[in-house]
Amino acid sequence: MSQLIDTRALEAALHTFADERDWHRFHTPRSLILALTGEVGELAEIFQWKTDEQAAAVMTTPEAEHVRQEIADVLLYLMRLAMVLEIDVDQAVRNKIAMNAIKYPPAR
Amino acid sequence: MSQLIDTRALEAALHTFADERDWHRFHTPRSLILALTGEVGELAEIFQWKTDEQAAAVMTTPEAEHVRQEIADVLLYLMRLAMVLEIDVDQAVRNKIAMNAIKYPPAR
Amino acid sequence: MSQLIDTRALEAALHTFADERDWHRFHTPRSLILALTGEVGELAEIFQWKTDEQAAAVMTTPEAEHVRQEIADVLLYLMRLAMVLEIDVDQAVRNKIAMNAIKYPPAR
Amino acid sequence: MSQLIDTRALEAALHTFADERDWHRFHTPRSLILALTGEVGELAEIFQWKTDEQAAAVMTTPEAEHVRQEIADVLLYLMRLAMVLEIDVDQAVRNKIAMNAIKYPPAR
Repeated sequence: MSQLIDTRALEAALHTFADERDWHRFHTPRSLILALTGEVGELAEIFQWKTDEQAAAVMTTPEAEHVRQEIADVLLYLMRLAMVLEIDVDQAVRNKIAMNAIKYPPAR
Repeated sequence: MSQLIDTRALEAALHTFADERDWHRFHTPRSLILALTGEVGELAEIFQWKTDEQAAAVMTTPEAEHVRQEIADVLLYLMRLAMVLEIDVDQAVRNKIAMNAIKYPPAR
Repeated sequence: MSQLIDTRALEAALHTFADERDWHRFHTPRSLILALTGEVGELAEIFQWKTDEQAAAVMTTPEAEHVRQEIADVLLYLMRLAMVLEIDVDQAVRNKIAMNAIKYPPAR
Repeated sequence: MSQLIDTRALEAALHTFADERDWHRFHTPRSLILALTGEVGELAEIFQWKTDEQAAAVMTTPEAEHVRQEIADVLLYLMRLAMVLEIDVDQAVRNKIAMNAIKYPPAR
């Protein structure tokens, strides 16, 4: 399988961002997982009292920008975690999809 | 800011994967956030009883592959969520980094 | 094992609280788990950038009240979830401790 | 408001349990929040692909015991967290309900 996701520019930007603020010392794996948990929690809060219909239509409401920001926050902390653990996310994702394809054969 | 992350091939692969298994009907926003919560939970479990030193060294241990798989799982569900909400993750990430740069000016 | 936790007065208070606000219709299992995820996320945020030493001393700081409130929020949503699922939490807790005692025999 | 929840026997049992296994050294606030995140994740997984109707009926299915165990696990780690932070959960819960009653006045 060829490359599925290219995160090189994002990783470079996040490295510079942390560097300029002297944040590398805070970005330990356990701290980044707690931060990830916090952001997933904020995403969950947006949807907690919505019906499935309201949830499906959220991007047509004034909450759309909030949803975009929380999705971005989850992705940013996940990438920082992958970076400090030196994980190649493209490789990890390709391996996992290949495993899933064996575990769940196509229905048709 | 130019493009930071390219997810087009991954989104195409995930769309085909869901399509071939008739999974689109399960991938509602609320279900995907619960799935994301489940995967972040599995990631947290790997690190819960580790010291910061043990956590920093996890990729040199036999648990490395497990960590890679859980990082991939979080990313895959996050991308599916972005896809069903029709969010441009590159745009969302660039906006969020620009906001963070204003909120947290460089220390030096 | 005799009773370990008595939640009857709390359950009655939460039932009345939801009743007076016409909130029962919102308190579905999936919504309550999303709400629980949100509150665990808020708890995680308090501790995300702390060292273990800072975390251990948090109750001696001005953040103590915030921690107490988030612990309460997690407990309140967990109890509402148990209530809508008609789970006897005392029984559930006693069974789980008995299972854990078999799974993890005392070291000494 | 008089006492709403009595956790004294549970706290004593959990203290003895940790003591007999020499687990107190592992039960730091950050580790317990990661463990709590892990258990909330397991709870979320049970419900992730269910419709609201299926979720409401889960206790009539063979998954009922699994749900009871995960609810217990969340409660046990939450109590351990409250214990290491020396939080009086009854007091915390009574204060939070009083705050909520002001924030959300009864609709009727």
